[in-house]
Amino acid sequence: MMNWPRTFSRRPALARRQAAFDPSASIEDLREHIKHFWAGFGPVQTGVDVQPVLISAIRGEWVVPESATGRRVILYFHGGGFIAGSPESHRALISRLAHAASARALVPQYRLAPEFPYPAALRDAADAYRWLLTQGITPANIVFAGDGSGGGLVFATLLALRNAGLPLPAGALCFSPWADMTLSGWSMLKNKANDDALSWELLATCARHYLKGASPAEPFASPLYGDFRGMPPIMIHAGSLEVLKDDASRLGERAAAANINVNVEVYEGMPHLFQGLPELPESKVSLTRAAAFIKARTPDVALRRAAQ
Amino acid sequence: MMNWPRTFSRRPALARRQAAFDPSASIEDLREHIKHFWAGFGPVQTGVDVQPVLISAIRGEWVVPESATGRRVILYFHGGGFIAGSPESHRALISRLAHAASARALVPQYRLAPEFPYPAALRDAADAYRWLLTQGITPANIVFAGDGSGGGLVFATLLALRNAGLPLPAGALCFSPWADMTLSGWSMLKNKANDDALSWELLATCARHYLKGASPAEPFASPLYGDFRGMPPIMIHAGSLEVLKDDASRLGERAAAANINVNVEVYEGMPHLFQGLPELPESKVSLTRAAAFIKARTPDVALRRAAQ
Repeated sequence: MMNWPRTFSRRPALARRQAAFDPSASIEDLREHIKHFWAGFGPVQTGVDVQPVLISAIRGEWVVPESATGRRVILYFHGGGFIAGSPESHRALISRLAHAASARALVPQYRLAPEFPYPAALRDAADAYRWLLTQGITPANIVFAGDGSGGGLVFATLLALRNAGLPLPAGALCFSPWADMTLSGWSMLKNKANDDALSWELLATCARHYLKGASPAEPFASPLYGDFRGMPPIMIHAGSLEVLKDDASRLGERAAAANINVNVEVYEGMPHLFQGLPELPESKVSLTRAAAFIKARTPDVALRRAAQ
Repeated sequence: MMNWPRTFSRRPALARRQAAFDPSASIEDLREHIKHFWAGFGPVQTGVDVQPVLISAIRGEWVVPESATGRRVILYFHGGGFIAGSPESHRALISRLAHAASARALVPQYRLAPEFPYPAALRDAADAYRWLLTQGITPANIVFAGDGSGGGLVFATLLALRNAGLPLPAGALCFSPWADMTLSGWSMLKNKANDDALSWELLATCARHYLKGASPAEPFASPLYGDFRGMPPIMIHAGSLEVLKDDASRLGERAAAANINVNVEVYEGMPHLFQGLPELPESKVSLTRAAAFIKARTPDVALRRAAQ
C-alpha cells in the first residue's frame, strides 16, 4: 500500500455532497443523480479517436489514442452501479488511461439494470472478451480495466472466463472497485461521513436493482466471495475517503490468499474514482502507475523481437 | 400475513430514538446503548419461578411459570446482536411467553462477541439443545424460540442440528428475527426513518464483532442463505416499522420454498420486538398467538392418553 499526502484542502473542489437519499426514487431520478458524478471528468484527451463498434449483440466504442501500439488492448468496463453509465459518460477518463498506456480501449455498452438485471452485464462483458479474441487479439495483449461496479465486473468476468476454461487476459486493473453487494466492508460505515459520492443507501439501491432477488453473496455478482485461483496479476487503486475502500483492500487479501500477484494502492485523502478529476496530482500519479501496469503486462513482443 | 390497525398514535410511548451512531464506539458503549432497549420490558410475570442452571459448560436459567405442564419446554435464545443481552435482560418477556404457553423456558447464557465471535453462540445453542435431550426431554416436547439475533440463532441452530443428523424440536418461533448479516433486506433502507430501535449502522457493527472476518453470507451466521429442508413448523412475528421486517418475510419465503409449514405475521405500525412492551394490545395478541403455536406443536400426549 502507498500513502500520499492528505489533500483535505482540495476537498471543496470535489464537493458533490448528496442530498438525503430517497429510497423510493424512480430509476430515472437515480440515473439523473448518478450522472452528476461524471460531470467533472473533464474533456476527452486530445489526439484520441473514438469509433463506434458493434460487439456481438451490443454496442460499444473503440477509444484509440495516437500513441496506441497495434496490439495492446484495454477492455474497459465503466462504472455506474450497474444501473447507469455508458462508454460516453466515462469517455474522458478512459481516453486519458488509453493515452497513458499507449493502448486502444474497447468499451462495451453492457446492458443495465433494472431493465436487464444480473447476470446480463456479466454475459455482455464475457461476450465482449470472446469477441475480442475472434478479432485476432490474443489474451496476452489484453488487460481488463474498470471502475466502481465495472471494477467488480472485471473480477466477475474473470471468474466466469476461468470457470469456462478460456485463456485469461494478461492483467486486471481497477479504480475504486465495488466487489461486494452485501456492502459488508467496514469502510461502508467508517467513511460514511467522508464519502461525497457514494453511500450505503445508494449502493443498496443499485444492488437491489441489479440483483432482483439473487443472493448478494453470489460470487458472479460479488466476486469478493469468489475463488481467485488462476487470476492474472491485479492492480487496484482506491481513495482513503471512500465507502468502497475496504472492497479494494479485501480484494487484495482475497487475491493474495490465492497466491495471485496483486497490488492495492490506497490514495490518502482521495474520494471515489478521483482519477476522473484530471486536475488532481493524485489522478496523474494513479493513471501513470495504471498505465505502467498495463504496459508491463502487455510488452510488445513483436517489436522487441524486431529490435533483436 | 395478518395486518393490524396502524398505531402511530402510540409511537411516542415507544420513543427510543437513537443518537447519531458512532462507528468507533467501544464495545462497552455499544452494550450500554443496547441495554436501554430492554428497559421498557416491564416486570417479570407474577407466579414465575426463576432457577439458575448449569447447561453443560455455560450458565443459564429455567423460567418456570405456575402454569407449566411437566413436559413442554421452550429453548429460548435472547437477542442483543450477538454482543449483548442475557437471560436476565430478557427475563420479563420470556416469563410472559412461558406463562402464556404453559411451558418451562430454558434460557442459555450463550457466549457473546467480540470476546467470543461466531460460531461460539451457535455452539452453545446447539449444546443447550443436546443437554436438554440428556435431561430426558424429548424433541417432540421442545420448541425453539428467540428474538432478534436470537431469532437468527434459532434457524442457524436448526441447520446445524439437522446437518448433524439429530432429531429436531417440534417447532420454531421467532420475534423480529435477524437472519441476514449482509443486511440486504429492502426494509433496511425503507424503514430507516421508521425504526426507533435498530439501524443499518448498529447491525453492521454487531455483525462485524460477531463475524470477525467470517463471510456474512455463511448460512450458519445468516441462516437466510441456508437450505430449510427438514425444518419443523415455523412461526415468525415482526413489526411493519422495523428495518428487520424483510428478514421475517424472506425467512418465510425461504421456508415455504422448502415446503416447510411457516406462518409470518407482520404487525402493522409495530416496532422491533414490540412483544417486549407489555401494555400494547398487539403484544398480547402476538404472545397469545405464539403461545397457541407452542401448545399446538407440543400437545401433552401423556395427558391425552390418560383421558382416553
